[in-house]
Amino acid sequence: MSNGEDEITAWFARQSRLSKADFPIGIGDDMAEIRLTCDVSVLITTDMLLDSVHFDLEKATLRQVGYKAMAVSLSDCAAMATVPVAAVVSVALPVGFGEKELKELHSGIVSAGDKFNCELIGGDITRWNNDNPFAICVSMLSRSSGDKPLRRSGAKVGDSICITGSLGGSIQKKHLEFEPRVKEAVKIAQMVTINSMIDISDGLSSDLNRICQASQVGAVIDAVKIPISDEASKEADPLSSALNDGEDFELLFTLSQTDCRELFKKWCGLIPVTQIGQITDAKKMQIKMPDGQISDLQPGGYNHLR
Amino acid sequence: MSNGEDEITAWFARQSRLSKADFPIGIGDDMAEIRLTCDVSVLITTDMLLDSVHFDLEKATLRQVGYKAMAVSLSDCAAMATVPVAAVVSVALPVGFGEKELKELHSGIVSAGDKFNCELIGGDITRWNNDNPFAICVSMLSRSSGDKPLRRSGAKVGDSICITGSLGGSIQKKHLEFEPRVKEAVKIAQMVTINSMIDISDGLSSDLNRICQASQVGAVIDAVKIPISDEASKEADPLSSALNDGEDFELLFTLSQTDCRELFKKWCGLIPVTQIGQITDAKKMQIKMPDGQISDLQPGGYNHLR
Repeated sequence: MSNGEDEITAWFARQSRLSKADFPIGIGDDMAEIRLTCDVSVLITTDMLLDSVHFDLEKATLRQVGYKAMAVSLSDCAAMATVPVAAVVSVALPVGFGEKELKELHSGIVSAGDKFNCELIGGDITRWNNDNPFAICVSMLSRSSGDKPLRRSGAKVGDSICITGSLGGSIQKKHLEFEPRVKEAVKIAQMVTINSMIDISDGLSSDLNRICQASQVGAVIDAVKIPISDEASKEADPLSSALNDGEDFELLFTLSQTDCRELFKKWCGLIPVTQIGQITDAKKMQIKMPDGQISDLQPGGYNHLR
Repeated sequence: MSNGEDEITAWFARQSRLSKADFPIGIGDDMAEIRLTCDVSVLITTDMLLDSVHFDLEKATLRQVGYKAMAVSLSDCAAMATVPVAAVVSVALPVGFGEKELKELHSGIVSAGDKFNCELIGGDITRWNNDNPFAICVSMLSRSSGDKPLRRSGAKVGDSICITGSLGGSIQKKHLEFEPRVKEAVKIAQMVTINSMIDISDGLSSDLNRICQASQVGAVIDAVKIPISDEASKEADPLSSALNDGEDFELLFTLSQTDCRELFKKWCGLIPVTQIGQITDAKKMQIKMPDGQISDLQPGGYNHLR
């Protein structure tokens, strides 16, 4: 979902009269939470991926597409430090897609699910009448790994802002084969207290803005601290690429400075964790540029509605 | 899902190594069941609806489309006599769709959900780059209304075959505004023991075939007993229309003859329930025609893959 859609999503959220008891987390976070009994709840996310928008079937295989569709939802599970349980997958098939294509897609879906013990448990196969493109929708269930799922809305002034991995240039290759940070999210949440978390799907600037909006805080990030991917380094403006490209599917989270030091002491994951800035009370995002100047930072990810 | 897809679905089901303990119902029924703790489980279904396949945006309003998309999944909940809980909705928007269109769609989604206390709790808004049609995917969670969700696979030789409502001609109007039989399903399941149930989405002949296949039984239905809708009555071949049209979204279920008599004694719902035949050990479907002759009956619903 992109920024323009954030506004209509906020409108949808305002229309809903969800009971906090039955639905502790509703519209507007990475997943919604449904309380089934006083001590059992389940979370759900849904993601639609379209040919020529989220992948290009002239370049990507159906196995890659199946993998990516699952990985995007797995990344939503990671964004809340929850544990994936099961997924259902609906597809809209172009004319000419048959058993062979469905089996190739299935192999990609299962290869992603298997990495995280997330079972494919159902689906729906539909078919366009005319020459329209392939679409796939994954809906995934997860369960909390701890007391409560991590949310976007808990960032506190003074928090350190951290990310996993490196950013930018995902379109070159990573967007088709990224590793959802499910294990890292659960591990981090078990080591220290995380105040807010999201996965970077539309770019650091857009997703940090979502944390700021949901938490009613500001942020300042330090340009020289942002880990820029090898792919983004080759771009004309690597920093802009790291800030805005989208589809990094890394974790972005905030925690107290004490917890941040604790995390860096303990962290032994293969994926690096980097502190890139701090939560402020400025009600806007800022960036400290390499020359020391501080500028305002706008969410610069995709914005389909504008 | 149609008959050709039943075969590939069966293949997918064979690939899966779902644990019966964690997933009592997997691929191949109206919903899958996920056991979260020893006594708490949740069910999920997903349905993709496409412009010019499942509705025609030149004739239907977006409110009707939102309603239908939810109603199809609500009908899946009914098919297992489960109680809808919540839904997530993903959409692929054509170029030019904005806030107005999304709000109209939303009103239809919510109007269907509200009827059955099924909350809209999340979604994903995506947008085609080019001039491609609207698609909507609903994934819905439900919970069991009794001991266990009703399945397709429990039909027994000698069972009476019953349906709710009347069949055929749904394309005229009903497919956009049908009432999912959620309340009827729960009521029926509470009154008597139902051995198998499904909703009629692809036509009586196709969906009865699914019960027969899953239960490894045969069936004989009595043509003169099939309640034919007013719309189907105006068709060239009303019986064929009632057998094969699809999108009736009525309930089809089987129960012992004793329970069937009991049900008819007790039933006071507004929607009629009619006995139309019997489960046999013939391993095929048959139909007793109005002239008394018995013919083989083939699943005649849509078959996209062939």
